Amino acid sequence: MTSPHPALLQYVKTHLPRFRRELDELLVIPSVSTESARQGQVLAAAEWTAQALRALGCGRVESFPTPGAPLVYGESIPAGGSAPTVLIYGHYDVQPVDPLELWQSDPFQPVVRGEDLYARGASDMKGQILAVLKAVEAVLSAGAKRPAFKFLFEGEEEIGSTHLPEFIRTHRDLLACDLCLNPDAGMIAPELPTITYGLRGLAYFELRLRGPSHDLHSGMYGGVVHNPAQVLCELVAAMHEPSGRVNLPGFYDVVRPLDPEERRELGRLPMDEAFYLRASGAPALWAGEQGFTPFERVGARPTLEVNGLSSGFTGEGSKTVLPAEAMGKISMRLVPDQTPEQVTSQLEAFLRQRVPASVRWELKRLAGGPPSISARESPGVRALARALGEAWGQAPVFRREGGSIPVVAYLQEYLGVESLLTGFSLPEDNAHSPNEKLHLPTWQKGIAALALFFSYLAE
Amino acid sequence: MTSPHPALLQYVKTHLPRFRRELDELLVIPSVSTESARQGQVLAAAEWTAQALRALGCGRVESFPTPGAPLVYGESIPAGGSAPTVLIYGHYDVQPVDPLELWQSDPFQPVVRGEDLYARGASDMKGQILAVLKAVEAVLSAGAKRPAFKFLFEGEEEIGSTHLPEFIRTHRDLLACDLCLNPDAGMIAPELPTITYGLRGLAYFELRLRGPSHDLHSGMYGGVVHNPAQVLCELVAAMHEPSGRVNLPGFYDVVRPLDPEERRELGRLPMDEAFYLRASGAPALWAGEQGFTPFERVGARPTLEVNGLSSGFTGEGSKTVLPAEAMGKISMRLVPDQTPEQVTSQLEAFLRQRVPASVRWELKRLAGGPPSISARESPGVRALARALGEAWGQAPVFRREGGSIPVVAYLQEYLGVESLLTGFSLPEDNAHSPNEKLHLPTWQKGIAALALFFSYLAE
Repeated sequence: MTSPHPALLQYVKTHLPRFRRELDELLVIPSVSTESARQGQVLAAAEWTAQALRALGCGRVESFPTPGAPLVYGESIPAGGSAPTVLIYGHYDVQPVDPLELWQSDPFQPVVRGEDLYARGASDMKGQILAVLKAVEAVLSAGAKRPAFKFLFEGEEEIGSTHLPEFIRTHRDLLACDLCLNPDAGMIAPELPTITYGLRGLAYFELRLRGPSHDLHSGMYGGVVHNPAQVLCELVAAMHEPSGRVNLPGFYDVVRPLDPEERRELGRLPMDEAFYLRASGAPALWAGEQGFTPFERVGARPTLEVNGLSSGFTGEGSKTVLPAEAMGKISMRLVPDQTPEQVTSQLEAFLRQRVPASVRWELKRLAGGPPSISARESPGVRALARALGEAWGQAPVFRREGGSIPVVAYLQEYLGVESLLTGFSLPEDNAHSPNEKLHLPTWQKGIAALALFFSYLAE
Repeated sequence: MTSPHPALLQYVKTHLPRFRRELDELLVIPSVSTESARQGQVLAAAEWTAQALRALGCGRVESFPTPGAPLVYGESIPAGGSAPTVLIYGHYDVQPVDPLELWQSDPFQPVVRGEDLYARGASDMKGQILAVLKAVEAVLSAGAKRPAFKFLFEGEEEIGSTHLPEFIRTHRDLLACDLCLNPDAGMIAPELPTITYGLRGLAYFELRLRGPSHDLHSGMYGGVVHNPAQVLCELVAAMHEPSGRVNLPGFYDVVRPLDPEERRELGRLPMDEAFYLRASGAPALWAGEQGFTPFERVGARPTLEVNGLSSGFTGEGSKTVLPAEAMGKISMRLVPDQTPEQVTSQLEAFLRQRVPASVRWELKRLAGGPPSISARESPGVRALARALGEAWGQAPVFRREGGSIPVVAYLQEYLGVESLLTGFSLPEDNAHSPNEKLHLPTWQKGIAALALFFSYLAE
């Protein structure tokens, strides 16, 4: 049998206009999982993916209801022989569109400007779902060697994958596979195909401090009643040492050190200070934890962030109130071998030690997932690296990612399989922001790369 | 001439039912100055006071329009001889009624329950306006010795007295007087007639910190981009020393020390820790500035409060955002000889020194007024103390007040006159809160006391 490459690549090229139309069909569905008014649309997106799996020739397609959005499962006809089974993960829900007024066009009316397709979900991750579905279609149509395919699409990724872990835990046989492909990890730059081998975990909290029983007049009580907003600020300030390290008791005890070889490799990525300055628009970077490069601090070191603050009077003008309550959303990004449970205890210990008797505190854990790290050498990684290298004419880079994809850790824990993390979204694609977009030339290369990957995986 | 007292006291007693009816007429007008939809009602309250001054026999009554609510001016027929001129200040506007559902009866339908009259403005300060008008009426009717009266009623006190300072500055001749009586200061307890001789000033700010140009994904940027919410917390935390002192450069330089005699006198007031605990509902008091009693910290020492905090995501659930911006409302209560201008410079210096290059800051001063303090010995104070003592059978207490009444400072600055601060509202009257009320027996004593005061003032 000759190399399947030319046929695969030709198939992708020939059918690209149709692929684009199919992507548009999915993008016009406003499947915003955070908004209860959109639950019908979330269901419609689930149904669209189920229908796409049927069209692909999957022998079994099933939508598993949950108390939230359904989990759509599909499997292809068996591949035969010793071909491995690959589980393809994706999510069909999208982020909210607020602030809508900053969008240059309707977030649910996909439109091309230049080389980019603008729509909510174009990059995160409806475009990636289409890429993988169309790569599978190409492999099946070309009659190339191929793995067996299983698919798992969820509709709650943007709200913390609430019902996914339990589903994986209770459907181990159904989901059994040799490896998982997760195309939700994106790439570093259009010319740099990227394999992500590490993800940070997450532990997200809401902290409420309550002082007086009601808002007080700041003139009548200021100086005598402890202001919960002030206490919150003091607590948050104390959560970092002046050196930039997180100041929770034992926070770094189980953090796996970076070995020199890995640091050397990460150091070759073009994620330097200039990159972060440009991408963030900040006037200057934060020194952060001393002794680590910016990229190491984001990808390979744990951090703590205030995600939100709220207290007292925040409207226009002045109101001299001593607020009864203050609220902070506080989250930690975790690296191996930290766990959300551990840092929860550490934060509770910190609060027990530091919150003064003049306020009451309440800590709610809202979301979380463990960190994960994969081998940088395995047959799956080699096949993916080869495919990406071929599609781009450039060997892929390996990186650790500062974000969290909880499903990766759960697949590792419950199925014992590693996830190959890649994808074709770019840092400038405005995922989670107004004017989300997909770079179409990168997307096309991505479809080709995934088709090649599947054929290499079965060789 | 015999002592005027019996006649005065009899007059008040005889006409009290009518005084109550007239108070009701004013209370049913919902003159909420913050609500633009109520501007007609604010005007109606202004007109009511002008009419009341005419009924009192004022030779001149004039309503001065401003871009906001009018200033109502009136003057009585001259008193003759060497009698002093007293300027009577009041405000005819009231606080909003929200949250309306917590009121036990319609805020603008006065109703008596027990010894109290419930209505918005009953205590702050339509009840006080009626008290002073009826005391003047009693003195005029009894033909007693009396001062010359001037009246100045504003309709913007609850929104910062926006147009009052300029009016005072440009109408010095019109307002010229020997002293001002301001019955907006209330009393400590029903059995303790109170003269307030010090008020704290105010300087109120909105501080905005801006970091990245847009909200960022906390996983992709956490550790590298400085979080403005974290910077805000660090700045606010640094605004106090661990000792409880305000940590702005030079903040205490011009603070007038308390002399031992004044401390002894303030120490006799029943405003102890138990009082503040009970009134605030806080689980414990704040230690605050070391070396001072709770009452001294509130009344005679400057303080700094966070009145509001806002940043990032504050809705239900979790959003892993590294916010682009953080906002804090921060205000200082000032004591002699601090000025709002000085503390503005001090806060700016603090920010210049401490805000890191990784965020930009903007400071807006929103409101403010200087502190004030009056002599505790003067003919006016002596006359007022004597009158209150006689009406209550109990010598009045002297206190300093933690709140701010800007008009007092402006009268001092532009007219060179001191204000006598008293009044007949009680701490439990729910001023600015639902179920505002007026204690009617206290109010009646107050009318009598003011009538006595006017007659003593002219002796």
